[in-house]
Amino acid sequence: MAVLDDVRRHGESARADIVARTGLGRTLVTQRIADLQELGLVSAGDLGVSTGGRAPRNVRFCPEAGRVLAADLGATGVDVALADLAGNLLAHRRDDVEVAAGPESVLSSISGLFDEVLAESDGPVPVWGVGVGVPGPVEFGSGRVVAPPIMPGWADYPIREYFAERYRAPTWVDNDVNVLMLGELRAGAARGHSNAMMVKLGTGIGAGIVVDGRLCRGAQGSAGDVGHTHARRDSTVACRCGKVGCLEALAGGLAMAREGMALAAAGNEMLARRLQERGTLDAADVLWAAGRGDQSCVELVGRCGMLIGEMLSTAVHFLNPALIVLAGRVAAASDVLLAAIRQTVYAQSLPFATRRLEITGAELGADGGAIGVATMVVDELLSPGRLSAWIAAGSPAGAAEIAALPG
Amino acid sequence: MAVLDDVRRHGESARADIVARTGLGRTLVTQRIADLQELGLVSAGDLGVSTGGRAPRNVRFCPEAGRVLAADLGATGVDVALADLAGNLLAHRRDDVEVAAGPESVLSSISGLFDEVLAESDGPVPVWGVGVGVPGPVEFGSGRVVAPPIMPGWADYPIREYFAERYRAPTWVDNDVNVLMLGELRAGAARGHSNAMMVKLGTGIGAGIVVDGRLCRGAQGSAGDVGHTHARRDSTVACRCGKVGCLEALAGGLAMAREGMALAAAGNEMLARRLQERGTLDAADVLWAAGRGDQSCVELVGRCGMLIGEMLSTAVHFLNPALIVLAGRVAAASDVLLAAIRQTVYAQSLPFATRRLEITGAELGADGGAIGVATMVVDELLSPGRLSAWIAAGSPAGAAEIAALPG
Repeated sequence: MAVLDDVRRHGESARADIVARTGLGRTLVTQRIADLQELGLVSAGDLGVSTGGRAPRNVRFCPEAGRVLAADLGATGVDVALADLAGNLLAHRRDDVEVAAGPESVLSSISGLFDEVLAESDGPVPVWGVGVGVPGPVEFGSGRVVAPPIMPGWADYPIREYFAERYRAPTWVDNDVNVLMLGELRAGAARGHSNAMMVKLGTGIGAGIVVDGRLCRGAQGSAGDVGHTHARRDSTVACRCGKVGCLEALAGGLAMAREGMALAAAGNEMLARRLQERGTLDAADVLWAAGRGDQSCVELVGRCGMLIGEMLSTAVHFLNPALIVLAGRVAAASDVLLAAIRQTVYAQSLPFATRRLEITGAELGADGGAIGVATMVVDELLSPGRLSAWIAAGSPAGAAEIAALPG
Repeated sequence: MAVLDDVRRHGESARADIVARTGLGRTLVTQRIADLQELGLVSAGDLGVSTGGRAPRNVRFCPEAGRVLAADLGATGVDVALADLAGNLLAHRRDDVEVAAGPESVLSSISGLFDEVLAESDGPVPVWGVGVGVPGPVEFGSGRVVAPPIMPGWADYPIREYFAERYRAPTWVDNDVNVLMLGELRAGAARGHSNAMMVKLGTGIGAGIVVDGRLCRGAQGSAGDVGHTHARRDSTVACRCGKVGCLEALAGGLAMAREGMALAAAGNEMLARRLQERGTLDAADVLWAAGRGDQSCVELVGRCGMLIGEMLSTAVHFLNPALIVLAGRVAAASDVLLAAIRQTVYAQSLPFATRRLEITGAELGADGGAIGVATMVVDELLSPGRLSAWIAAGSPAGAAEIAALPG
C-alpha cells in the first residue's frame, strides 16, 4: 500500500509529506493511516508542525508489530535470525552446513536454528512469515530452486511448503543476491533509491536489480543472472554452466584462483610462497598480492575488473540506475578491483547515463543476507493484497492467512 | 489502481476473476468498481455466471469516457491522432516535418494537426491529456529532451508546457522506442505480458523494457539506450555519440548502409547496380540483396544480427523477459537478420532463461507509434494518485487537473 510503503521508506513523517509524496488525497491518506493504526503497523509519533490550529502527530512505522524468521543459506554455512518488520535482527545464529548435503538434512538444521532463536524470546512469538535465501536460481512464484549448479538434490524441492507447514506461516524463497539487494535497499547503501543494481562478486558473479523501487525478478525469476553473460567472443574457458566465455568463468572468484595458481606455477614469487604455506590459492590471495603491488596480480585483477565493468556498462545502458552496489567477499577485499570496475563503467557508458551514477560498496556486511531475507518476507507480507485482507479481517495474519497456506 | 489496471488488461471480466487476479478483498473490489462507474471509466457488461442466486454483471472498461491527443515524431515525419482511452485512433494525420528544423516550427505544425483531428469530431472534445513521442532521449520526469544527437535545438525545450498550456491538459513526453513498447504492450505483440522487451532496429538501435507490467525508464529516463552498448572491443568505428565500437555504429541501419556502400565499391554486382540506379544505398538495399541470396550481404546481415543477438542475450540474463519484440523498418524488412538474431540469443543464453522466451515481430505496424503515445498518456492519466483525486472530486480531469498543470 502506497501510504505504508512511504512511511517505511521515509521514516517518521508528517501527514502533509505523505500526501505530497504519494500523490494521494488527504482524506484517503487519513483513512489509510487509521486502518494501519488499527493493525498496529503505524502509530502516532512526535508532534508535527502546525499550519494553524492544532499540530497533527507525525506517523511512524511500528516494526515491533510482528516477527519473521529468516535463513540465508550459502554454500558452506547458514545465517538464521528472528527479525522485526524493519529487518532488525533480534536473535541471530550462524552455523556450518554443506548445501551439497541436500535439502532434507539442511532444512532440518535450519529448523533447529529457527527453534533456537524463537526460544530466546520472552513468551510465545507469533511468526508472521518465513524466508529463505539460497545460493542458486529460484522461480520466485513457486519458491522452487531451478537447475542449481552448486545445490545437488535441491531442484524442485518444496522448501516453501516445508517451513509453511512447520511454522503455520507464509514462506518465501529467493536467491542470495536478490535478498542481499533487498537488504541494502531497505537498510544499507541503496536506502532511498528507486533504480539501483547490486553485483555480488564471490566464487561466482550475480546481480540484483531494482526498478522503480521494486526488485526485478523477471518472467521465471532468473533476472540478474549476469555471471553467464558472454564476456569474451574469443575465449575457450568453459563455465560450470556448460557454456564457454561466461563472465563468471573469466572474472569470478574461482577464475581468479585458477589464474593465480597458473601464475604461481609460472614462477610468481608472492603467490608461490603463499601456495607453499597453504597448499592452495583462492581469490583472496590474488587480491592480497595485487594490493601489495605484485604486477602480474594487478594486471590479472585489472582484467577481471574490466570484464565486470563492461557488463555493468551494458547494464547502465539497459537500466539507467542511479546506484551500483558492489558486494561480496571479492568486492570487499580489493580496491584494485573496484578501481578497474569504476574506470571501465565510466569510460564505456554515455555521459548522460553516468553523470549522476554512484558506484559504492555494500554497507550491511556479514548480516546483510539475513537482513535481506527478513526484508523480502516483510515486503511480501505488507503487499497491498495481503494488507487489504488484514484490514477487512481487522487484524494481521491470523486464521485467514493460515487457511491460505501454500500446499 | 489495481482494479482498473486489471480490467484494462484483461478486458470484460467477472468480479470474482478481478478478486482472484488482484488479490484484493471482495468488498474493496466492489467499492472500487462503484467509484470507477461514478467516473464513467467502467460499466456493467454482460451477465456473468451465477454461483447460486442472481448472476452478477461483468465489468468492462469504457475507453469512450475520455479523449487524448497523441503525436509521434520521427526524424522526417510526424503521426498525429485523437485517441480514446484504449489507444484506439479516432482520427489520424501523417505529415512530413524535419525534426532538425527545431522545436518552434515542429511544435507549431503538430498543433495545427492536433486542431485538425479535433475538428473532425462532432462537437467539442474534452481533451484529458496530450502525449508526444520524440526520436531522442527524454528525462521523463521533466519531459525535457536531453543531449539529442538528431534533434538540434531541442535540448531542454519545454515541450510539455507548450501543449499543456495550449490544450489545458496534462502532457507527457517520452522517446519513440518507449512509446512503441507501450503500444505493443497494450494492444500488440506484448499484450498480456509482464516482462518483455522491444528492440527497434532503424537508422539507430534502441530498446524499450517492461518489468512487472511497467515501462522501465531508469533514474534519468535513459533506460533502453542499448544502441550505445560496447559491441566490439577491437573496433575502431566511431559512433555518432562520440564513443567507439557502439552496437549502433556496427549493426544499425546506418552501419548497414555504410558497409553496403563499401561492398558496392569493392565490386559487389547486385549492390553496385542498385547504387547506380539510385545514387545511394541504404540498409533496405543490403537487406534486399541478402534476401535474394547475395553471399556478401548475407554475411554482413548475419554479422549485424549476431551483434544485436549478443546484446539481447545479455539482456535476457539481466532481465529474464518472456518476450522480445523486434520492431522498426530494418527488423520488418529481413528474415535473414531475424534468423541471425534468434540463433545468437538462443545459443548464448542459459536454457533456463530461454526455455519459455519468445522472439517475435511487432504487430501494430505504422500506427504503432501513435497508439503507443496515446497509451502512455492514458497510463499516466489513470495512475493511482490521479484516480484518487478524481474519485475525491467526483469527476475525472476538470478544475483540479488544470490548476495542477506543469509550469
